[in-house]
Amino acid sequence: MQRRAFLQTGLAAGVMGMGGVTAAPHLLKLSPRTGLKGPIRLSSNENPLGIAPAARRAIIEGLVDANRYPQGSGRMIEALAAKHGVKPENIVLGAGSTEVLKMTVHALATPSGRLIVAEPTYEDGPWYAGALPVEVVKVPLRSDYSHDLDQMQARASAGTGTVLVYLCSPNNPTGTLTPSADIDAWIASAPDTMYFLVDEAYFDYVEDPRYWSAIRWVPERPNVVIARTFSKVYGMAGIRLGYGIAHEETAERLRRFRVRNNANHLALVAGMASLDEAGFVERSLDVNQRGKRILHECLEDLGLDYLPSHTNFVMHRITGDLKTYREMMLERGIRVGRPFPPMLTHSRLSIGLPAEMEQFAETLKALRKEGKV
Amino acid sequence: MQRRAFLQTGLAAGVMGMGGVTAAPHLLKLSPRTGLKGPIRLSSNENPLGIAPAARRAIIEGLVDANRYPQGSGRMIEALAAKHGVKPENIVLGAGSTEVLKMTVHALATPSGRLIVAEPTYEDGPWYAGALPVEVVKVPLRSDYSHDLDQMQARASAGTGTVLVYLCSPNNPTGTLTPSADIDAWIASAPDTMYFLVDEAYFDYVEDPRYWSAIRWVPERPNVVIARTFSKVYGMAGIRLGYGIAHEETAERLRRFRVRNNANHLALVAGMASLDEAGFVERSLDVNQRGKRILHECLEDLGLDYLPSHTNFVMHRITGDLKTYREMMLERGIRVGRPFPPMLTHSRLSIGLPAEMEQFAETLKALRKEGKV
Repeated sequence: MQRRAFLQTGLAAGVMGMGGVTAAPHLLKLSPRTGLKGPIRLSSNENPLGIAPAARRAIIEGLVDANRYPQGSGRMIEALAAKHGVKPENIVLGAGSTEVLKMTVHALATPSGRLIVAEPTYEDGPWYAGALPVEVVKVPLRSDYSHDLDQMQARASAGTGTVLVYLCSPNNPTGTLTPSADIDAWIASAPDTMYFLVDEAYFDYVEDPRYWSAIRWVPERPNVVIARTFSKVYGMAGIRLGYGIAHEETAERLRRFRVRNNANHLALVAGMASLDEAGFVERSLDVNQRGKRILHECLEDLGLDYLPSHTNFVMHRITGDLKTYREMMLERGIRVGRPFPPMLTHSRLSIGLPAEMEQFAETLKALRKEGKV
Repeated sequence: MQRRAFLQTGLAAGVMGMGGVTAAPHLLKLSPRTGLKGPIRLSSNENPLGIAPAARRAIIEGLVDANRYPQGSGRMIEALAAKHGVKPENIVLGAGSTEVLKMTVHALATPSGRLIVAEPTYEDGPWYAGALPVEVVKVPLRSDYSHDLDQMQARASAGTGTVLVYLCSPNNPTGTLTPSADIDAWIASAPDTMYFLVDEAYFDYVEDPRYWSAIRWVPERPNVVIARTFSKVYGMAGIRLGYGIAHEETAERLRRFRVRNNANHLALVAGMASLDEAGFVERSLDVNQRGKRILHECLEDLGLDYLPSHTNFVMHRITGDLKTYREMMLERGIRVGRPFPPMLTHSRLSIGLPAEMEQFAETLKALRKEGKV
């Protein structure tokens, strides 16, 4: 099934799309999928479909210019501005959305400021703050795994100095939402000197009506930055392309902290092709839903609780020690998510292809029979 | 001739190398070279050969994993450590060497320090310093266009606070060397608190016996950082891969300022393939020499002085206004280098393919006949 999935979604599609060629077996023979040799990767919230066929084609066509410094940033910025109904001046490109997090922390959380984050949440913001004289304040999630905005607000408002609030919604690693109305209420009442970094990496997976983008704040509020990525529904995690959306004054402040030429040529051509490709996002969402159903069913069969997921991963209970669990899974060919303290009674599992989820379910059930989970 | 050059060096080579396929016209038809539509780019010191055939092949093979976060950083670091005879701990990857410049400036030039640079020199170091409370001190090149190390040392030693000295040798935009013995003498006598960032982006082009790498200082001196790139002889400017070499303590300080996952998957596979590909560097150097000879001959015919170049570009005199000159060239299909104040009586010309250099020479001679240069 893995091989079949590869044939459906792999290089073949890209080559076949290029000029009506019906097969290119020599390319396939030389293109082993890492996953066929190593463990199944259900660890990093990647898109198991691979990149879009149009993106593959664009990269192959773009190789002839790979020796040139990237030319397409302006076109990408215009395309993203059009997509989001903002001005090109509001868009800041990054080598993945992680660079947007870095730019924001380095530009807005200093000097001697505080970064307010949930616990647990995505680690990159605090990681970047670690290089600076910035205090990281961690506020535990509520019992429903939404951000505890009341506590975060209390911590943000206490004391003086620069404050940057990082809101990851849906939150990684829990997959849970913080209602957008609550975020809006805080932003509406916050002083101009309190900055918000809203990480919407998993935006496209959400179907819940309580959720919407914070982009609406961009025209009027220079203290709001939104981070988006091509790593998830577009499947471009390896190619590194993300972007920030912010008021033009703030966008310019962030840009001063970018790596020059940060959006590489192949990422730009693949990204443009992905934006234009009809149906790929829908296929990604569909595959994700199918995989999630298989996983949910398995977890319910085994009586293992899981958090409601609005993303391409699920945080679920395990029995026993997380380190042992991860090792047992790896021995059986499945890489599950890293530990996210303090949630060490849970494992974060990324949604792979349906067949991969079936293999996971079989493995988990076999471990249960052995009395190991 | 451009088309012929493309066929020799373009995608065809990559595809032909993949499985004994002798032609892939459908790929070529869909792969217009940007240069065929736009002006010849003799503006950005790119490698006109394109990326190595093995790198093209590696990227095409690597597309199947482009949806996965980059896996190959460790292998790349080991390969670079072996290449340079240092430990893996001494290598810091970057999205181009520009990110190494950024990490170094952000990690070592603060707080409230000074960055000492030549004038003119490559702009990225000062550009990154511009985001910080760092004073940029510019010291004019000597009359032989080497760095004025005496003046730089005087400026570096005056005053208190952190000092980072940026030495670009060969220097961009002049192409000229600063003798390595002179750099060594300064480093040997400098206090530990004075940092040196030695940019060796054009290292591979140098044949002068007065030149060697500053890597020799890495094992014993935590105050020396060397920057290298895959953008020049390896032709990977569009794919973004560079690295720093430094004492392990310093390397770890730099790493804290990196963008996470900064080396993208396609850059890593292309870089590994490029390191292994026999003959590509030699071809790059040979093409560069041939192009440079054509240019030198033309400039001598026209009585236009040029600086001795140890790189893949030449800084040469023009008559008249640089802005007008650049526009005239662009109207005739040739993009030359940007202005590098204060050298506004000179144009920086990158070495293209021999046919491109012949076209440049014809264009320049025609402009002379029209009395315009």
